Amino acid sequence: MDQKAENAKDPLVLFMPSGRRGRFAQGTNVLEAARQLGVYVESVCGGRGICGRCQIEIQEGHFAKHGITSAADHLSPFGAKETRYAEKRDLLEGRRLSCSTTVQGDLVIDIPQDVQVNAQIVRKAADARLIDRNPAIQMCYVEVEEPDMHKPLGDLDRLKLALERDWGFSDIMIDQHLLPRVQAILRKGKWAVTAAIHKDMETARPSLIALYPGLKNEAYGIACDIGSTTIAMHLSSLLSGLTIASAGISNPQIRFGEDLMSRVSYVMMNPDGCEAMTKAVHNALNGLIEEVCAESGVDPQDILDAVFVGNPIMHHLFLGIDPTELGGAPFALAVSGAVHSWASDLDLALNMGTRVYMLPCIAGHVGADAAAATLSEGPHRQDEMMLLVDVGTNAEIILGNRDRVVAASSPTGPAFEGAEISCGQRAAPGAIERVRIDPQTLEPRVRVLGTEPWSDEPGFDLLTENTKVTGVCGSGIIEVVAEMYLAGIITEDGVINGELAEKSKRIIRDGRTYSYVLWEEDTTLTITQNDVRAIQLAKAALYAGIKLLMDKQGIAHVDRIGLAGAFGSFIDPKYAMVLGLVPDCDLDKVKAVGNAAGTGARMALLNRDYRREIEQTVTAIEKIETALEPKFQEHFVYAMALPNKVDPFPKLEKAVQLPPKTAPASTEERPARRRSREGRRQRS
Amino acid sequence: MDQKAENAKDPLVLFMPSGRRGRFAQGTNVLEAARQLGVYVESVCGGRGICGRCQIEIQEGHFAKHGITSAADHLSPFGAKETRYAEKRDLLEGRRLSCSTTVQGDLVIDIPQDVQVNAQIVRKAADARLIDRNPAIQMCYVEVEEPDMHKPLGDLDRLKLALERDWGFSDIMIDQHLLPRVQAILRKGKWAVTAAIHKDMETARPSLIALYPGLKNEAYGIACDIGSTTIAMHLSSLLSGLTIASAGISNPQIRFGEDLMSRVSYVMMNPDGCEAMTKAVHNALNGLIEEVCAESGVDPQDILDAVFVGNPIMHHLFLGIDPTELGGAPFALAVSGAVHSWASDLDLALNMGTRVYMLPCIAGHVGADAAAATLSEGPHRQDEMMLLVDVGTNAEIILGNRDRVVAASSPTGPAFEGAEISCGQRAAPGAIERVRIDPQTLEPRVRVLGTEPWSDEPGFDLLTENTKVTGVCGSGIIEVVAEMYLAGIITEDGVINGELAEKSKRIIRDGRTYSYVLWEEDTTLTITQNDVRAIQLAKAALYAGIKLLMDKQGIAHVDRIGLAGAFGSFIDPKYAMVLGLVPDCDLDKVKAVGNAAGTGARMALLNRDYRREIEQTVTAIEKIETALEPKFQEHFVYAMALPNKVDPFPKLEKAVQLPPKTAPASTEERPARRRSREGRRQRS
Repeated sequence: MDQKAENAKDPLVLFMPSGRRGRFAQGTNVLEAARQLGVYVESVCGGRGICGRCQIEIQEGHFAKHGITSAADHLSPFGAKETRYAEKRDLLEGRRLSCSTTVQGDLVIDIPQDVQVNAQIVRKAADARLIDRNPAIQMCYVEVEEPDMHKPLGDLDRLKLALERDWGFSDIMIDQHLLPRVQAILRKGKWAVTAAIHKDMETARPSLIALYPGLKNEAYGIACDIGSTTIAMHLSSLLSGLTIASAGISNPQIRFGEDLMSRVSYVMMNPDGCEAMTKAVHNALNGLIEEVCAESGVDPQDILDAVFVGNPIMHHLFLGIDPTELGGAPFALAVSGAVHSWASDLDLALNMGTRVYMLPCIAGHVGADAAAATLSEGPHRQDEMMLLVDVGTNAEIILGNRDRVVAASSPTGPAFEGAEISCGQRAAPGAIERVRIDPQTLEPRVRVLGTEPWSDEPGFDLLTENTKVTGVCGSGIIEVVAEMYLAGIITEDGVINGELAEKSKRIIRDGRTYSYVLWEEDTTLTITQNDVRAIQLAKAALYAGIKLLMDKQGIAHVDRIGLAGAFGSFIDPKYAMVLGLVPDCDLDKVKAVGNAAGTGARMALLNRDYRREIEQTVTAIEKIETALEPKFQEHFVYAMALPNKVDPFPKLEKAVQLPPKTAPASTEERPARRRSREGRRQRS
Repeated sequence: MDQKAENAKDPLVLFMPSGRRGRFAQGTNVLEAARQLGVYVESVCGGRGICGRCQIEIQEGHFAKHGITSAADHLSPFGAKETRYAEKRDLLEGRRLSCSTTVQGDLVIDIPQDVQVNAQIVRKAADARLIDRNPAIQMCYVEVEEPDMHKPLGDLDRLKLALERDWGFSDIMIDQHLLPRVQAILRKGKWAVTAAIHKDMETARPSLIALYPGLKNEAYGIACDIGSTTIAMHLSSLLSGLTIASAGISNPQIRFGEDLMSRVSYVMMNPDGCEAMTKAVHNALNGLIEEVCAESGVDPQDILDAVFVGNPIMHHLFLGIDPTELGGAPFALAVSGAVHSWASDLDLALNMGTRVYMLPCIAGHVGADAAAATLSEGPHRQDEMMLLVDVGTNAEIILGNRDRVVAASSPTGPAFEGAEISCGQRAAPGAIERVRIDPQTLEPRVRVLGTEPWSDEPGFDLLTENTKVTGVCGSGIIEVVAEMYLAGIITEDGVINGELAEKSKRIIRDGRTYSYVLWEEDTTLTITQNDVRAIQLAKAALYAGIKLLMDKQGIAHVDRIGLAGAFGSFIDPKYAMVLGLVPDCDLDKVKAVGNAAGTGARMALLNRDYRREIEQTVTAIEKIETALEPKFQEHFVYAMALPNKVDPFPKLEKAVQLPPKTAPASTEERPARRRSREGRRQRS
């Protein structure tokens, strides 16, 4: 940096997309210039012009804002190394190898994100966010001195010297499994080898974890979200950053218990329960590894890094830790900080040197998956106050901005996933996912998963003949209850108005309460008073958790809401707000953020700086234990009402006509009684 | 150190035996004072007065040289912690706990080397040298905060905080195998645990490798020398430094080949030869571990560190490395630097967290055992020019002082071990180990291994009836050839003088040469011309190697000679010099140094500073490859003569009457011819 100040006449170089810039003496190597500015440009061959990883493009033109006129001839002309590379491999028109070019004038340089030197099937997933790279694994090509009787340094020791000389790694450790193979690999590569160096934390010594004869121009990593229900895995190139295969399966632990607490119970009841469940998840992961490798043609031995996230119980079971302590107060995590481990110690069928990184857990009920979602959505990186919600059997709630982040978990139960609902089912073809109710006639229109037309549109009949309607999935339940409220079928207290039975045969008596008939073709699907209560309880738990965090932040509204996971992807934000699942917010600032936990895992895989970022962020996050907060019960009681007994929803009301509120009168106490009675039944 | 200068009136404290001293303010904790001066005082409990490891004694009196009057009352009086400890355990009269006392006046403090807090059988081995301690393993007792729902830090994370707070370890890594056990151990210890922290190199992050509930006041290590013939193991307390058990067995690899090169051949001929030999040595080590643990009552799980040394081929086979490259030029070691590994990766039946350290190898023929012997004898620490020789099938030769150390290996062959000698045998009961020949009558007197009297002394007959004489062992062969020379039976060229057959019936014709009849009772043992030649070849190889190193150092004589290993322990330095195995030297400066390699291994086990010392020393040692040095052949030729054709032995001649030299004449060429002919036969 001093040098730049010294010579303002040196060419100015601007790297995109990072926008980092600096002045460099004419003749400075471009790769070196990028490194000096901390711009990550991959290079395996260490500037020999053979790996082709360090490609750049020159943006031509006058960039007034930066005071730069950039032109291709501000780079040194094609040299021998580049010409040889372009002849042997494909170098796209306009591309240059930064290791083989020097700065000759002002430059605006693009670091393309699509550098592919191997012909791979590249999966273009919908959420394939481009991630800045700085992986914990570096592939380092070196040419090693041959043995010499006059200098009896060992083969490994000469390899280490070459790695220090060419790549600056000193004090390298070597995995025991590699020791017996070093000599043969060096000879097979005729003293040219590619070393995979693992260096995660700055304070750690670099480790030689794999060694390949000759130039090894690829290395892979997996990022994996171990959910209670589903395990999802992405295979990424550590060198290009691209995701090249993805796969998911049901968590096989389901046979030990559908939800988390029943799995903890299983461990408590069975002496080898923990081991059995750990083995089940390791086997499932090995199945997924086979699958992503088969899909992409990648050798599992070339997967050198792996990042895992999961809720605290999955996190513990994956690591072979008995989760019993998480089953009761004080919900003590065995380990909350990030875990560094070895794939071989976790029985994963990868390279013996493959490293494992697990993101930190935030609290006993807010796991590494929530940390990963935080990393992905970055409330801690923004000025706006962001609410991040991931709803499963528990809802993980993160609320904050760059000044302060708070987190909590709220026991919503499985109602939002269609369980505990009389006509509920998992999201699958045949499930009603969208509902509209005419406020005049109280007649419903529905849309069914796997079909396009609504039930009153042409073509629907034809489809339902093939695709039978079988139930209502999570998003459908939220919509039907919200629409019942908007149509006046239920009051804001959640009571189905029996008086309407006279007006519509859709309202039917059911013992002492009433139900709404949503579907009556071959199957009859009704929404009962208990179904409405289950949704009220779940949404009250979620909202109370959110409200508690808003209290901690001292705010009355949030700027932005991210709805993570499958739940977030399918529900309509408007209906979520009509029910009062989330607080009032501009509807266009409420977004589904997809598998944020998986994205966060990929970020940690591709860039070790993100590991440090989330470790620091998690340490700073304030954890709120809802069970210990007296205000939680109060918020819960008020949140039983639709959308809420006390909080106004002015922004929602601009978009939707809400029914008029009834007088608060005696209702203040009623929901509390009702809740305690029904709560026991639902949760027992 | 600044503080001392600031206040010269503060009490002066002198620690013995290190002699380190400093001034400390009145009231300074004695343990803290020792730490500040870098005096190693063990403490497991971190100053709680419960482990009893930090004992000291006060030397009373006036120490004029240091200007100190030391008295027991210059220490604070017995406090509650010490009184409690003394009541519960044995605290010897005069002993204090340094953690619980403060400086009150000038003090001369002894750090006793015999602190034992457990009743152990302590083996007092002859060579049990006291070793300054600074082990790579530190036992750290901590009291950990209990989990708290308001602070959802994991159990491990709180343990780490306690280790940072009480012991200053930050950034601790944890072995994967421990993760699943942390919670149960913390609860079993009621939140008080002892952590075993491994920190070898300063640049490495500390690792938590074992965890015990409550106070764990002991930890052990093994030091092991893997010889081609014998494997020897010592079990030491890492806390007291004492060796508490030792064991040795024959190297089971002998079944794959008696000497090193035949084992290399076995690997070259058999695809799984390396694996089989690695497994054999690992099994043998596990047998020794069982043995030392049974002898001492130590649980193998409490062995947390292990140091191994061995010649390059044993070193490689132990690590599972194919030694084929060591079988031919350029004799490339797979790894020459120190190796850090895990006992579990080497199939050793120890704790899953046990670490392994192997000393560096010096060259392809000068292994980690020679490095360990160097560490033990310390030529690099002294002003005198020291020659260190370890004779096996190869002789490892180290020559140097604090300015410069050079090393070489010389192919002596197995003659010195009794192989290649017609009447030779291994050192065992029945072997002749001492020989005297009357220069007048040429009649021999002998002493036999396992008996006290000489063959012409009373009681010998009785013994030989039980203990039959079966052969001549290495030291006996050296003595008989030397005595034959001193008695004039062989000339300095090594020719048995046939003319003497007329004078003594001990000289008999044997084809074209003559033999000497050493023993003729039930067995007849003769020393043939070929036997003499074999010894000449072996000693010439050794001496030529030594001479080469003396050339490199530019010296004509050495100040001190250390003879390592079994060979060094049994031969009489006088006869070694009469034969010209070693150069001229004051006889009282030629010493057997015992199992120097084993001692060096113990030093590296008990003090990680010694690891750094030998790593740096080995890097600095100049390695001489005898095969590449033209002068080696020349020295070899001259060294065929007894004691040597060209080098004078004035100091030897003061002690022993050597026969007059014959004229050099044409002999200069004869030995060369003879050597090349016989050399082929011997070495093929």
